[in-house]
Amino acid sequence: MLIRNPANPIITPQMVKPSAEGLKVVGTFNPAATVYNNEVILIMRVAETCIKKPGFISIPYFDFSTDKSFLSVLDVPEKDPDVKLKDTRGILYKGREYLSSVSHLRLARSKDGVNFIINEKPFILPYDETESFGVEDARISHIGDDYFINYTVVSSDGYATFLSKTKDFKHIERLGIIFPPLNKDVVIFEEKVNGKYIALHRPDNHGFGLPSIWYADSPDLTHWGNHKCLLRPRANQWEMKKIGGGAPPIKTKQGWLEIFHGKGENNMYSLNLLLLDLEDPSKILAVGEKPFMFPETKYEKEGFFGNVIFTNGHIVMPDGSIKIYYGSSDEHICMAETSIEKLLQLL
Amino acid sequence: MLIRNPANPIITPQMVKPSAEGLKVVGTFNPAATVYNNEVILIMRVAETCIKKPGFISIPYFDFSTDKSFLSVLDVPEKDPDVKLKDTRGILYKGREYLSSVSHLRLARSKDGVNFIINEKPFILPYDETESFGVEDARISHIGDDYFINYTVVSSDGYATFLSKTKDFKHIERLGIIFPPLNKDVVIFEEKVNGKYIALHRPDNHGFGLPSIWYADSPDLTHWGNHKCLLRPRANQWEMKKIGGGAPPIKTKQGWLEIFHGKGENNMYSLNLLLLDLEDPSKILAVGEKPFMFPETKYEKEGFFGNVIFTNGHIVMPDGSIKIYYGSSDEHICMAETSIEKLLQLL
Repeated sequence: MLIRNPANPIITPQMVKPSAEGLKVVGTFNPAATVYNNEVILIMRVAETCIKKPGFISIPYFDFSTDKSFLSVLDVPEKDPDVKLKDTRGILYKGREYLSSVSHLRLARSKDGVNFIINEKPFILPYDETESFGVEDARISHIGDDYFINYTVVSSDGYATFLSKTKDFKHIERLGIIFPPLNKDVVIFEEKVNGKYIALHRPDNHGFGLPSIWYADSPDLTHWGNHKCLLRPRANQWEMKKIGGGAPPIKTKQGWLEIFHGKGENNMYSLNLLLLDLEDPSKILAVGEKPFMFPETKYEKEGFFGNVIFTNGHIVMPDGSIKIYYGSSDEHICMAETSIEKLLQLL
Repeated sequence: MLIRNPANPIITPQMVKPSAEGLKVVGTFNPAATVYNNEVILIMRVAETCIKKPGFISIPYFDFSTDKSFLSVLDVPEKDPDVKLKDTRGILYKGREYLSSVSHLRLARSKDGVNFIINEKPFILPYDETESFGVEDARISHIGDDYFINYTVVSSDGYATFLSKTKDFKHIERLGIIFPPLNKDVVIFEEKVNGKYIALHRPDNHGFGLPSIWYADSPDLTHWGNHKCLLRPRANQWEMKKIGGGAPPIKTKQGWLEIFHGKGENNMYSLNLLLLDLEDPSKILAVGEKPFMFPETKYEKEGFFGNVIFTNGHIVMPDGSIKIYYGSSDEHICMAETSIEKLLQLL
């Protein structure tokens, strides 16, 4: 049903140049995908940490003091009384919070969808202090002449979803936060339905239910409303902890086909299918009974954070075949192929 | 500077008729306010619980089984093995979650702003299961011929902000969730600024910073975007736990004047002032150094939840005086008077 590419993982941290000296890439994962100029374009999440220097705690941070932000390294003597380790991921230095690893978005392109040329420099970096903990997990929606890129911006205010657009994957126009904290896993449909743009999103509802997939619509892609909860995780199932959208849904004769992820027992992330009504995507037509894809191979079970398959990008070919790009174990990028027809048969 | 009305609290639970037999009103607080037909209109939050019956746990719940929802009572024998008390506020019965007290919105009107005629029936009840834990804390924005009413809808999906509108305070048109979970304390400006509607909102950012006041704008009042964090609680101050908007801001020559609440030490809620730029309300011109109003009287210090002053409604008179309606101790409705001029002098 599903064929994992024999070259998997097709992109590894070793293949990605760090943003600056003193840094090392620890993860390149969760890529958005589209086709542009006859090439497959990936916008990958690249996570970097500092190379350990004896006697120092080295902290990666985005420097916003000049016109253009950049990733830099702050070296603090280990014995400095102003430095405190908060937990495994957080560092407190002189009252300011830092993360031990931070992410930006990087571009890669390929003629065959398997062998990628990876840009040496970041494509999207945090813009200012409101994105100081990094930018993560992009999705690309190709609408008209524009490629709309949404991604998670993280700071001490929380995580939110930001929208930018490009026509050429060189110049980027920033359009603002479209879903305020705490909200991620946003997928924007690639065409209007009944005159409105449609998105799925995933607000956090800490203290109430479990993080669920919500519906919203928009007149202009930047202002969203008419929010409705579409699908909730079920107890004692593969997705019992949370669910969230993947890439923009695929339009089929049967309905909008969405590949989504769920987090279950032992923090395992798997992929399942959701079919939404063509005319009214706030109506669910079908949900897969169980995941069609879950961690099975070594590169999906082991890594920076093992047992994770997460997708936010795929390419549908004219013959109905589909290349699903996915992050494995929060460390690598992989690809698996199947067809729309085979996916629909699972529903 | 500020004169509390001698008749305070002007509305108490004893003055409000329960929605149904078997219920008692435990709180009537946090009213939205506006002027309609030469009367002051309040949309009050009314919290009800069940009258205790020996041998039973009585649970208030909204019944959605017929065309029009209504508040009802479920009597469960105390020894029923299917009933579980979750915490002081939650009850689990046959796998379904209930609250020990639930809120709806009730209308009251007055010629003098002090003596109110209180409707005997609910004005806004939860509409369906997505509002099953109740509706709370309304704000009224008078725009053109319409009164836009936003309020918090609560369910196991979390709390979110819903928008409805009315022209006559009889017929209500539902416009949908405008800020998805977890989001409340929404105030919508009563006129457009630079062609856009403006709101302040308060997303929860659990696990990151403290709940802060955010800015958003909209082309149509139902779709919101361009979200920006405006004001954050400061450490070790009166508002150190969280802050949130009050009623729609007052347009003054100096700027948009917003009365907002903060939660501080010992869970005390007080009120402070915020001045926003007339032309660009995402710019802060001034913030009050300390609260101009905090719990001082017996009815503000004692009650269902003592030490709380919370406002989401006020009336500005043609002479520049202002009647601030507020909930005290999550139990009563009170009113205090001052003037715009005096408030501006504090900034």
